[in-house]
Formats: sequence, C-alpha cells, structure tokens
Amino acid sequence: MRGIFYGIGVGPGDPELLTVKAIRAIEKVDVLIAPKTEKKDGSVALSIAKPYLKDDVEIVYQVFPMVKGFAENSTEAWEQNKKEILELLEAGKNVAFLTLGDPMFYSTYIYVYRLLEHEDIEIQTIPGIPAFAAIGSLMGYPIVEGDDVLSIVPATAPPEKVEKAVQAADNVVLMKVYKNFDEVTDMLARNDMAKQAVLVSRAGLPNEKIIRDIEEHKGEKLNYLSTILTRKN
Amino acid sequence: MRGIFYGIGVGPGDPELLTVKAIRAIEKVDVLIAPKTEKKDGSVALSIAKPYLKDDVEIVYQVFPMVKGFAENSTEAWEQNKKEILELLEAGKNVAFLTLGDPMFYSTYIYVYRLLEHEDIEIQTIPGIPAFAAIGSLMGYPIVEGDDVLSIVPATAPPEKVEKAVQAADNVVLMKVYKNFDEVTDMLARNDMAKQAVLVSRAGLPNEKIIRDIEEHKGEKLNYLSTILTRKN
Repeated sequence: MRGIFYGIGVGPGDPELLTVKAIRAIEKVDVLIAPKTEKKDGSVALSIAKPYLKDDVEIVYQVFPMVKGFAENSTEAWEQNKKEILELLEAGKNVAFLTLGDPMFYSTYIYVYRLLEHEDIEIQTIPGIPAFAAIGSLMGYPIVEGDDVLSIVPATAPPEKVEKAVQAADNVVLMKVYKNFDEVTDMLARNDMAKQAVLVSRAGLPNEKIIRDIEEHKGEKLNYLSTILTRKN
Repeated sequence: MRGIFYGIGVGPGDPELLTVKAIRAIEKVDVLIAPKTEKKDGSVALSIAKPYLKDDVEIVYQVFPMVKGFAENSTEAWEQNKKEILELLEAGKNVAFLTLGDPMFYSTYIYVYRLLEHEDIEIQTIPGIPAFAAIGSLMGYPIVEGDDVLSIVPATAPPEKVEKAVQAADNVVLMKVYKNFDEVTDMLARNDMAKQAVLVSRAGLPNEKIIRDIEEHKGEKLNYLSTILTRKN
C-alpha cells in the first residue's frame, strides 16, 4: 500500500502545544523530509516532535532553493526532491514534512505542498499553533478583539510596505524581527505603537527572551524567531 | 489551596485539534464558566471539549454584556461575574473559560482575562488553533507566504474599514462572514479577489460547509462561524 504524505505543524516550541492530530500523525511517520538550509527552522521543528517520533525514523535531507515565482520556475533540485518523495511513498512509507508553527502560514511546506498537490497521492496537512497565538497567551496580551483589524507583517518585507500595513491596522503582529530590529522599533515609535509592544523570541524554546520596552533594547542582537505584538494606542 | 483559572482555546471544531496542554488543563477543571448569550460559541466550545471533561464538572452560566470601552465601564454584571469566579477559586476549585479557536484572538475570554488579571490569582491561558489555520490545511490553501502581508478582518466591521484593510494586504482572512455575505462578495469581486476565494463554515463541526465559487452562492444563508481565505490575483 502506498504511504501517506503528511505536512505537520508542530507549534512554536513547547511540545505540549502539539495537537492530538499532529501527534497521531507523527507516530505513524517512517521518513521525515528535513530542509538542509542555513535557517535552522527544520531542526527546531524536529526537536519539538522528537518525543513522539518512532525510534528508527529515517531522516532525508533535501535542499529547497527558494526562488521568486517558484511555481512557474520549479528547478531541477525541486524536481529531484519530488521524485525522491514519490519513490518513498510508492515503497509504502509514510513521509512527513514538519513545520514550526502552522504549515500553511509562512512556511517552506507551502512549496513542498505545491510540488505534490497534483500527484496521485494522499496528502494530509495538519494545522499548528502559530507563534503569535502562543505569545498572546504567554504574555496575557490580547492579539485582536471586537471589530478590529489585525495585520500580520514580516519585518523582512520592504520598509515602506511594512509601515503601510502597520498603519492600515488596529493591531499588528510583526514576524521575523531580527536583522532590522532598530528600524522596526523606530517605525513603531513614529506610529505611536512602540510603548505598548511586546517582543518574544523563541517562545517556548530554550533561550526564550521577552522584551517589554523595545525602545530600551535597540542595538540588541535577536534570534530569527522573534515576534512583536502591538496595537494602536 | 486556591484553584487555578484557565483560559483554554479548544480550536475550531475537531476534538483532535486540541493541544496536549489544553487537554491536560481540561482534565483538571472543576467548574466551567459558560457565557449565556444568543451567539452559541460557548456551547460549541463545550461540545468540543466534552470528551476530555470530568463527568461531574459543574457549569456556571454567566451573562457578559458587551459594551464598548469595557475596561473603563465595567458594569455591575461583570463585577458580579468576577466575585463569583473568585469565590470558586477561593473554595479550591479549578475554574475554566473555554474559547472556540484561540483565547486571545477575537474572543470573549479577553474581557474575562482583563477582569481577573490584576487579582491575586493564578491564570493560565492556553492557545488554540484559529479557524483560519484549520481551513488553510483542510483546503490546501496557503494562508500567506514569503514576505507577503496578511490582513485579518471581521466582516462585521464598517464596510469602508473592511475594504481598506483588504486593499492594504496581499492575503486576507475575512471572519464572521454571514450577515453581509453578498456585500463582502461584491467588495472582493471589485478588488479582484473573489475568484480565488474559499469560504468554510463550521470547519470540523457538524454541518461544515465549503464554498469555492462565492459569487455563485450569493443570497445564501451562512452560519456565524464562516471564514473566507483569499489573496491578490
């Protein structure tokens, strides 16, 4: 029998924030596809799932070159990845791709999914807790309420785009705040959204860091997995 | 020993989408606070959590009058609710408030949390899977990717505000699409975002409904728990 391909969200860090559905899937996995990239997301996801994995699970590392307009320009490396995954499924193995947070939310899994969605295989995608939700609960910080609008913005987007999205919303989640933490802090201050901001790095993971007064922390070096929650004054 | 107050996200519908942390908390609950409102969210959350609840769990119904500027104008009804909750905790009972989806994301729990956060009690808030995440996985629909901006917008907000937020983003989640489904569909069509939209009502619950061609379904009566995912063309 052909195996099933799983895309599994493991949440932001705490292994107790996996869902029952994610755990039941992880327990069935024979082969994990792990991205071989400089960003360590994949290995973080693996460490979160570890308590639930089969002892003899096989790990296959694949290179996922990120190119703009990926869907139209699928490269040879991606085609090679697809071939390898299909062969594993054909051999009756259950194959999974783990995602930190949620698999359909700013994840490499989206590209893996697109690569496979038109093949004649069974794909099960299992949602996960996004980091911003875990941070809201951890900090007692309402993410958004009533009829308010929430913008979710990667701080790695062009600065004008980030600022425009921030101004259009009542509440804001800024993700991947690391390279340009100082610029983002200045932008929030300019829009009267710095004082009430909270920043959490690596929520639920080793070396978790909480910053409540971001303006006092300018110049600090932050981890890639850093998220700011804020709102209009 | 004084009890603990829990705010627990139970996810959008499927009891397998509860986290391990949520289940462990639900198993400890002696008293559930349930909102007595015309919207049936509370009782839906209760039905999702049911498999994990103590058989003899006590349910206390409270009225939560929603008023603008709640924090400044806490009414007598809310003060009465607070008194009742504090007495239960004082009697050593673990008390919980269940939330459909995530407790810090468009939830009545936010107001309950504010009512209690400055009291001398232990509060544990446990995140849940938001409906939009479950819908992305269910439909194989990427919610947002790369450096794109996501707007999350309640369709119940003023129409100009909704349209402005939609125009400011690459990807959009529209929540509570029911009363004004036709107007929302026209607005999305006007902004070239109707064709690629998907709508899911009651994801993972009885009477789940999936609509892929929203323009063909105008005039239909939708459940309160209806969400649209869409993106720029």
